[in-house]
Amino acid sequence: MPGMMDTILNLGLNDDAVEGLKRRTENGRFAFDSYRRFLQMFGNVVLEIPKEAFEHEFDQVKKAWNAKLDTDLDEPGLREVAERYKEVVQRRSGKSFPQNPNEQLKMARDAVFRSWMNPRAQEYRRIYDIPDHIGTAVNVQMMVFGNTGGRSATGVGFTRNPATGKKEFYGEFLINAQGEDVVAGIRTPRPIRDLEKVMPKTYQQLREITTRLEKHYKDMQDFEFTIQDERLFMLQTRSGKRTGFAAVVVATDMVAEKLITPKEAVLLVDPESLNQLLAPGFDQDEWKKIATAARGLPASPGAASGQVVFSADQAVRWVNQDKQVILVRRETVPDDIHGMFVAQGILTATGGMTSHAAVVGRQMGKPSIVGAGALEIDEARRQFRVSGQTVKEGDYISFDGLTGEVKIARVSSKSSEILQVISGTLPVAKSDIYQRFDKLLTWADKFRRLGVYANADQPDQAEIAYAFGARGIGLCRTEHMFFGEGRIPIVQRMILADTESDRRKALNELLPLQREDFYGVFKAMRGCPVTIRTIDPPLHEFLPKREDLMVDVARLEAAGKTGKELDEKRTVLARVEQLHEFNPMLGHRGVRLGITYPEITEMQTRAIIEAACRLSKEGIAVVPEIMIPLVGLVKELRDQKAIVDRVAADAMNEQGVRITYLVGTMIEVPRGSIVADQIAQEAHFFSFGTNDLTQLTFGFSRDDVGKFLKIYQDKKILEKDPFASIDVEGVGDLVRVGVERGRKTRPDLKIGVCGEHGGDAASVHFFHNVGLDYVSASPYRVPVARLAAAQAALAVRVGD
Amino acid sequence: MPGMMDTILNLGLNDDAVEGLKRRTENGRFAFDSYRRFLQMFGNVVLEIPKEAFEHEFDQVKKAWNAKLDTDLDEPGLREVAERYKEVVQRRSGKSFPQNPNEQLKMARDAVFRSWMNPRAQEYRRIYDIPDHIGTAVNVQMMVFGNTGGRSATGVGFTRNPATGKKEFYGEFLINAQGEDVVAGIRTPRPIRDLEKVMPKTYQQLREITTRLEKHYKDMQDFEFTIQDERLFMLQTRSGKRTGFAAVVVATDMVAEKLITPKEAVLLVDPESLNQLLAPGFDQDEWKKIATAARGLPASPGAASGQVVFSADQAVRWVNQDKQVILVRRETVPDDIHGMFVAQGILTATGGMTSHAAVVGRQMGKPSIVGAGALEIDEARRQFRVSGQTVKEGDYISFDGLTGEVKIARVSSKSSEILQVISGTLPVAKSDIYQRFDKLLTWADKFRRLGVYANADQPDQAEIAYAFGARGIGLCRTEHMFFGEGRIPIVQRMILADTESDRRKALNELLPLQREDFYGVFKAMRGCPVTIRTIDPPLHEFLPKREDLMVDVARLEAAGKTGKELDEKRTVLARVEQLHEFNPMLGHRGVRLGITYPEITEMQTRAIIEAACRLSKEGIAVVPEIMIPLVGLVKELRDQKAIVDRVAADAMNEQGVRITYLVGTMIEVPRGSIVADQIAQEAHFFSFGTNDLTQLTFGFSRDDVGKFLKIYQDKKILEKDPFASIDVEGVGDLVRVGVERGRKTRPDLKIGVCGEHGGDAASVHFFHNVGLDYVSASPYRVPVARLAAAQAALAVRVGD
Repeated sequence: MPGMMDTILNLGLNDDAVEGLKRRTENGRFAFDSYRRFLQMFGNVVLEIPKEAFEHEFDQVKKAWNAKLDTDLDEPGLREVAERYKEVVQRRSGKSFPQNPNEQLKMARDAVFRSWMNPRAQEYRRIYDIPDHIGTAVNVQMMVFGNTGGRSATGVGFTRNPATGKKEFYGEFLINAQGEDVVAGIRTPRPIRDLEKVMPKTYQQLREITTRLEKHYKDMQDFEFTIQDERLFMLQTRSGKRTGFAAVVVATDMVAEKLITPKEAVLLVDPESLNQLLAPGFDQDEWKKIATAARGLPASPGAASGQVVFSADQAVRWVNQDKQVILVRRETVPDDIHGMFVAQGILTATGGMTSHAAVVGRQMGKPSIVGAGALEIDEARRQFRVSGQTVKEGDYISFDGLTGEVKIARVSSKSSEILQVISGTLPVAKSDIYQRFDKLLTWADKFRRLGVYANADQPDQAEIAYAFGARGIGLCRTEHMFFGEGRIPIVQRMILADTESDRRKALNELLPLQREDFYGVFKAMRGCPVTIRTIDPPLHEFLPKREDLMVDVARLEAAGKTGKELDEKRTVLARVEQLHEFNPMLGHRGVRLGITYPEITEMQTRAIIEAACRLSKEGIAVVPEIMIPLVGLVKELRDQKAIVDRVAADAMNEQGVRITYLVGTMIEVPRGSIVADQIAQEAHFFSFGTNDLTQLTFGFSRDDVGKFLKIYQDKKILEKDPFASIDVEGVGDLVRVGVERGRKTRPDLKIGVCGEHGGDAASVHFFHNVGLDYVSASPYRVPVARLAAAQAALAVRVGD
Repeated sequence: MPGMMDTILNLGLNDDAVEGLKRRTENGRFAFDSYRRFLQMFGNVVLEIPKEAFEHEFDQVKKAWNAKLDTDLDEPGLREVAERYKEVVQRRSGKSFPQNPNEQLKMARDAVFRSWMNPRAQEYRRIYDIPDHIGTAVNVQMMVFGNTGGRSATGVGFTRNPATGKKEFYGEFLINAQGEDVVAGIRTPRPIRDLEKVMPKTYQQLREITTRLEKHYKDMQDFEFTIQDERLFMLQTRSGKRTGFAAVVVATDMVAEKLITPKEAVLLVDPESLNQLLAPGFDQDEWKKIATAARGLPASPGAASGQVVFSADQAVRWVNQDKQVILVRRETVPDDIHGMFVAQGILTATGGMTSHAAVVGRQMGKPSIVGAGALEIDEARRQFRVSGQTVKEGDYISFDGLTGEVKIARVSSKSSEILQVISGTLPVAKSDIYQRFDKLLTWADKFRRLGVYANADQPDQAEIAYAFGARGIGLCRTEHMFFGEGRIPIVQRMILADTESDRRKALNELLPLQREDFYGVFKAMRGCPVTIRTIDPPLHEFLPKREDLMVDVARLEAAGKTGKELDEKRTVLARVEQLHEFNPMLGHRGVRLGITYPEITEMQTRAIIEAACRLSKEGIAVVPEIMIPLVGLVKELRDQKAIVDRVAADAMNEQGVRITYLVGTMIEVPRGSIVADQIAQEAHFFSFGTNDLTQLTFGFSRDDVGKFLKIYQDKKILEKDPFASIDVEGVGDLVRVGVERGRKTRPDLKIGVCGEHGGDAASVHFFHNVGLDYVSASPYRVPVARLAAAQAALAVRVGD
């Protein structure tokens, strides 16, 4: 079990036992070296005396005996070291070293239990998401010795290669050594194959035992052993940690070897580890040489390297000049999308795991680090400071979106094989890993009950999602289309319109563009369900920022300028002021926009239905699912549904085609869950928007939570980031209530989830258990969702 | 029942019946005038033909017969009018006027039912909070006639004066007239006393009947009658609408008259109407003469008149020069408190019923109108435009916070008698209305189960709250104290501190000031429970606004300035940027501040405990209730409680006094309700913060909801403003869940509410039913809460 303290103390060793050991092994050096080691370890681990205190004495004795290396000291010297160590214990702990083995055992046992709460263990658990309350265990075993001489040894190994998954006996050993020596880095261990030459019989026995262990546990084993006078002792075996790559190779190989069934193979791979297969990677030797300048939240995996830019426009300009860029922003906004799209990676100083940069980064499969708070960004001067260094626009940086490390250097990376296949640049037949990946997920599909959809806004994203196995779109954000090439001016005209008729004029210009988008997405999905959300963000998001306009106006005024530019800025500012909100997340957005500007819902409905009609004429049946966001009152949905039904009827009459469509809603405000029984009277489907539901249930803004989330995790107030993995107790309770009440009214209600949690394995388990019909994840997390859904159906808890 | 269509049609009148009527009454003029009226009304109400169509014909005939007044037309003319009216019906409706009485009856019945959904009726119901679904009824009665000649009459009246409550027979009548004539304004009715002279016997009978009705219904009656040939017919009786003043007088008089019991008196007064007794008023004759320039939400009742100012500082300056000012702001912020305090009234262009201006206005008892969207405020030029007029700083405006009307003029007003008593400027003995008010509320106190506390931040507010009958403080917002005289610079130093030790220095300066505040509040409450909330708002609220700083810096830069001012602005801006949040409502506030800056919780705890110790030494036992806001996770509360307990123990040891204190939490994020069972492990009490809970349950920002709330109400998507009256279905469900789960863990958990809903009568009913222990209202709404709590205990629904 990860996180357990794993300390081997030679308990029972005392003055008498050492003399006995010396006699029994006829090796005084060995006996006193063992005693010395034990005293130091006991002192350090059990009595919490710093290692340095012991090392200081050791050095003194070495000097006195004129010994250069540790091994130059012989029995008399080591005996003196042991005596001095006992004095250290007496001096530092105020008690003499316990000669009674029972007392040693009790003290050691208690120290292990105490160690569960030491800061290092806590940090480890935080990183690996292990809850504090599960506690640790203590193993008490007879001691064996790998350091009794040339016929003894110690080693560690894996039954397969944990980096590549290749079926090869893998590990290392040391002659005349104890366990710690292998990993201490003082002596260089030898490859395990050499053991065959040194002790062929013992090697053979080790191979037999570890093969049997792998067969028994049906998984690659990570084992430790000691050989005492040519007798083999197995110290430990456990399932070995491995890269995502190795996980897939091992699982598929083991099925081919008939060691395990496909069902067992599906259970063998950690869904999250699949992300590593998709991420481009750095050359690790090169990467490790460079100092880490900052750390942030690992929002979207992958290696990114390029020249720093501070604006989306600059990113586009430089990429057009064939530069590779990293977009560095305090935070990103929807307006940055074009820059994010062309950048190698996105790095922000603020935001959490579901901030704009993180969500869009993951959806684009773009390496991203967010919330790197150490970056002091000065956008005006186009530079940032970090770790005492100033990085200017154009300087090279690199970061690893899997670990969150940022380095100030250029490091080369390459796209993964699987992405090359998905994007069609590498034939399937040429990629062994893709074939294995595909095989594993095809097995997974047989076991899962949950459907897996993707969140995708554009035809190209839909194509990738489909290639990754998504068989539906759970969330198509129509407003992302508004940020496409040349569209923002039309959208702004729509918003700035003084009258409904001017607004309708601008909407009429948007209609053919949206219709084309929908047509593309429908076509990419080849008839699978496509859920399209009507406009969601507050309108001011499409206009220049209020504070920027205020500054512009102030500058122009201070410089004594008058004329057109100032007037225009003032006009836009006046409208922006009208639209300004203190809390946009709780403001005039979602269905509230559709209700106040029904003509937007009308245009969007028309675009959806006309696109579906066109595909229907081409022989592809599409069932669009029109999704109204942010509904908390059944009458909101009733109002919008009436508009959708009216416009759809008109559009179908004009096209002379009848298509089927559904109207449903996102459940993302707590009230929506609470009155789900009422809302289900109008809704053909629900889709839980767990991002917003998490924001509102906790009262956490996902854009601002970075200011205290880390402190919450450090203080153990929150164990997991609730935006990364669903909060089962709180937010999950509202999901459960929403499902129960919704199905009470409409037993066949189709229910899914389209928040970021749809791609998180632990959350997928919850959604399976609570009875959802599907999860929708960002395209690059579809494989994770497929595998997690299968594991959930096979009733295995994740993280254990 | 209010809102019912109340139309009297003389059904059964047709050509034959008119001839019969003429014969029977020997009055042809009367018969054909009745026929004409009936035709017009039937045409108008049942067939929806505009009145003008009939009036046009009437005018034509009058011209032809050379008649000046209606009454100049005699039988032949009226007969012609009737014929022409029948033609109008034929022409406009396409069918001839139905001569069959049964058909007339059916059509009229259907028209009444239809009328329930006409826009005027809908608007009426919206204003008076009557749900749409309850529907209407149709009464069918025999017709009587008040216009058969000089021995007939019609009239309306009240058994007591509905404006003053005085016991006097009150009303008016007309000889030879039908009901509509009394209210039509063509003829001037006579005071009802005159009827005694004209028809003494009938008058006597009317007095006897109405007295009996009042006795029977145990309430002041509003009645209508008709006298046909000296025979009295009662047409209708109902409980009369009355002013708040009259309500109190009538209720207390009726108890004195032994007509009703105190319990019945308590049920007789609409709690909301008590507000009218507290509000200063305009001279109504003067007020009505002036045109209304704008309307806003009536946030806090009362008449306000003064010179316009656009900043809090200007308000203070001018008031120091003995001016009376109205503070006009786009919106108010905590920084404006000193200006709000000195102003006659507060008028804002944005915000809803629980926006900052509204909440603070009500708490101060200060007339306020918010969300007057028609005001185009130009703060830079110190003016606003409305209804085509420009109002500059210094111009006079007046508004009525009870109706939401704003007028551009100076109108005089005066403080209410009850407030004069409460503030001690008028002796109790000199105010009859205060004594009645006090008597009624003392009766109410006997029947209620709910405790009534007040939200008060300062000793003077606590004094008023106590005088109004609050027997506890449910919410003392410590941060409001930070805005006191000379404190903001210290608070800003605390926020801008780079190190914890600098922060502690500033906190040490705040400590004696807060301690003094708490001492004052405790003392004002004379040992009643005082609930003190630790700091809640995000820290940037105490600093200058980000956009203002950006503009200042831009101006200085554009003007080529360098030096200290620019440097200082940049320094503050840098810190403000760090603290900047996209959604402050969901940001770094509440318990999240206490967790990241434990030293703030420490200082506040120390101030509370030291103040309580001091009072204890003076012989007044105080049990402070320390309330941690915004808790959604039990570990948040555990963290803060540990700090409180530690500091309290230290402080009590230092003081050598032991006091009892409670530690509890606000339940205001949905997650708090959901995991209330866990939170109750740590909390001695819960206080529902229904303002925030409403924001988060709906996903509505109370500062931004104004942008769509009106449209929601117009479209009937929401019937009531959920910030004014609790949303029982949604938010109420979370309250119910929180109470159930909290009491499951701790059956004796003390539970209250301290949101604005604590002073809303309908909400108080809900809180009673859901089992709360107390409600806490703003001081001026304590009487409403006391009365509503009594009515809730007596199980009467409000609004019926």
